Amino acid sequence: MQNFEFYNPTRIVFGEGRVAELNRLVLADARVLILFGGDSARRNGTLAEVEAALGDRYVQHFGGIEPNPSYETLMRAVEQVRAEKLDFLLAVGGGSVIDGTKFVAAAVNYSGDPWDILETHGQTITQALPFGAVLTLPATGSEMNNGGVVTRKATKAKLPFRSALVFPRFSILDPTKTYTLPPRQIANGVVDAFVHIVEQYLTYPANAPVQDRFAEGLLLTLIELGPVALQDPKNYDVRANLMWVATLALNGLIGAGVPQDWATHMIGHEITAQHGLDHAQTLAIVLPAMLQERRGAKRDKLLQYAARVWGATQGDEEQRIDAAIVRTRDFFESLGVKTRLSDYQLNNAVIEPIVQQLEAHGMTRLGEHRDVDLQTSRRVLEASL
Amino acid sequence: MQNFEFYNPTRIVFGEGRVAELNRLVLADARVLILFGGDSARRNGTLAEVEAALGDRYVQHFGGIEPNPSYETLMRAVEQVRAEKLDFLLAVGGGSVIDGTKFVAAAVNYSGDPWDILETHGQTITQALPFGAVLTLPATGSEMNNGGVVTRKATKAKLPFRSALVFPRFSILDPTKTYTLPPRQIANGVVDAFVHIVEQYLTYPANAPVQDRFAEGLLLTLIELGPVALQDPKNYDVRANLMWVATLALNGLIGAGVPQDWATHMIGHEITAQHGLDHAQTLAIVLPAMLQERRGAKRDKLLQYAARVWGATQGDEEQRIDAAIVRTRDFFESLGVKTRLSDYQLNNAVIEPIVQQLEAHGMTRLGEHRDVDLQTSRRVLEASL
Repeated sequence: MQNFEFYNPTRIVFGEGRVAELNRLVLADARVLILFGGDSARRNGTLAEVEAALGDRYVQHFGGIEPNPSYETLMRAVEQVRAEKLDFLLAVGGGSVIDGTKFVAAAVNYSGDPWDILETHGQTITQALPFGAVLTLPATGSEMNNGGVVTRKATKAKLPFRSALVFPRFSILDPTKTYTLPPRQIANGVVDAFVHIVEQYLTYPANAPVQDRFAEGLLLTLIELGPVALQDPKNYDVRANLMWVATLALNGLIGAGVPQDWATHMIGHEITAQHGLDHAQTLAIVLPAMLQERRGAKRDKLLQYAARVWGATQGDEEQRIDAAIVRTRDFFESLGVKTRLSDYQLNNAVIEPIVQQLEAHGMTRLGEHRDVDLQTSRRVLEASL
Repeated sequence: MQNFEFYNPTRIVFGEGRVAELNRLVLADARVLILFGGDSARRNGTLAEVEAALGDRYVQHFGGIEPNPSYETLMRAVEQVRAEKLDFLLAVGGGSVIDGTKFVAAAVNYSGDPWDILETHGQTITQALPFGAVLTLPATGSEMNNGGVVTRKATKAKLPFRSALVFPRFSILDPTKTYTLPPRQIANGVVDAFVHIVEQYLTYPANAPVQDRFAEGLLLTLIELGPVALQDPKNYDVRANLMWVATLALNGLIGAGVPQDWATHMIGHEITAQHGLDHAQTLAIVLPAMLQERRGAKRDKLLQYAARVWGATQGDEEQRIDAAIVRTRDFFESLGVKTRLSDYQLNNAVIEPIVQQLEAHGMTRLGEHRDVDLQTSRRVLEASL
């Protein structure tokens, strides 16, 4: 096992009806900004429930945080917090809203140009407003980690940041809040969580049997429950387990003490930044091609993945690896998430600009061995057509 | 899945050589009390390493915390902290030292009689001194949770307590610190962690596939690595994984959202309090008899445990359950931990006094269904002879 540090102080309040506990979780004299995305939070009653729980606290709202939250939008929230002297942020939504709230929390009292936060991937964060979250979409794990991704529309840059100062103080996970999500968002969430796990698991053996078994347990649960979540949207237990899996997929636990990859994510970010695809769609496109391209480096773990996750124990080693990659792709497709650039009307012409953006963002040595160079990324994209 | 709240702010600093980081983890102006057990921490150099890392901080020592730490001993530490105005506690040892340190942290500024902390199982704790830990013995999980167990020698009462205020600020887990442990302590640690997992897993199905798979992953890892840890004491990876398993076995994660049992522990505590057996020895005695006694209530999970943990899929259901219980007992015995009261020169005469103490301590409705009454506990003890 590799040396590691694990620290995660986010309080998870899990279950139906827990939104009411905001009254316990938020200071009585807090001046709150509720941040949310589109209309759905208001339409399905979650915003009203949140407001009721906050009682007579001073509350303002900031709506319109988009999927792949933009620097431009978030800086308007920053201005509102500064102008109105608000001191607690409450994200109501999915990963985009929570990621955006983390950025706002760090930017409000940031001494320089807040874009630096993203350029330095969070290293220059020295303080942040406290914030909590009411999660409505299981997918990104942002509700229990200290990272986020923000896009600058003007330059089509989608950049990750991270800081120990931007853990949510609490996150309320009420599975019933996911009942009204469109199937596309549920499917995307399953793919997103799946690939988060794979990025921390499918690297090379590191003598970490517990991390492996936890990762495999999460993957098996997604494979079991993902399709059921689409067929039976109001199955509480299915939605509950999906929500908890997505949180555990990226709260630092399964990645502690093991090598990590993240090349698929970094390439996917560029596809979204340039072409607007959903984050999960980009992962579903890149991952199968990435596994194929790097089957040598990932050989031992691919065989373990084939056997323990897909039950692929027949045939020679190459056949078992092939089977694992095919079944991964088929799983994404079975959820309705297409796995080829061409499925999204993107062709060969998009590849070189994506590679150029990877270079511009310093993504020239990706992967668990830092050997996914631009040439490798180009081959992965070509294999994703 | 059941509703739950998960909160665990302890920072884990894991790996060889991490003790040096105490300088980063402890405030520069802290007045530190180092708490430890017997001579081994000094003899094997860990204390010297800790002192070197603390540099020129003001440091005092309190040694002699015994296995099953006693109220009487710990109150002397409380007096020392009060008299010397110390403000940070550092536990160097295993679960007994860390449990004891938690009690001291809560008792120093406690307004009433500190014994109340135990009588109320921690509910009356309103503040605690900050403290950290350097773990030298993987077993109890105390390094990453908010509970402890303290024994009052005068009355032979061994009582658990718990409070959100007694999480360690940090715990340093250096697997090399376990190299010099006697085999008996390693074996005890494996049994202790094993039974911690079983108490949270082997109850009844609660639609919690992730918690189940995590628990099974931890059990399988203990079964694989426990014997190797005894045969090959300086195998870093084995000791590292054992250490991380024991921590994860009782940090709240696998117990979140599922029913919990703990009847085996409560009966075991009374055996230790009256007869001085090691904690793990009492668990190894009680658990097989408890599973046998409650095979009806635990039927579904016993079958799952048989299949997934022991690979027992042959025969009818009763045979598979029998196999799982036998293999559990055999596993403990294979580690050198005896599983019968008679192995420890205890006979039928000890049972009634244990049952009386259970009654005196309010342990009259134990288990996940609260139906393990005194009569059931008596039968379990009779089956443990």
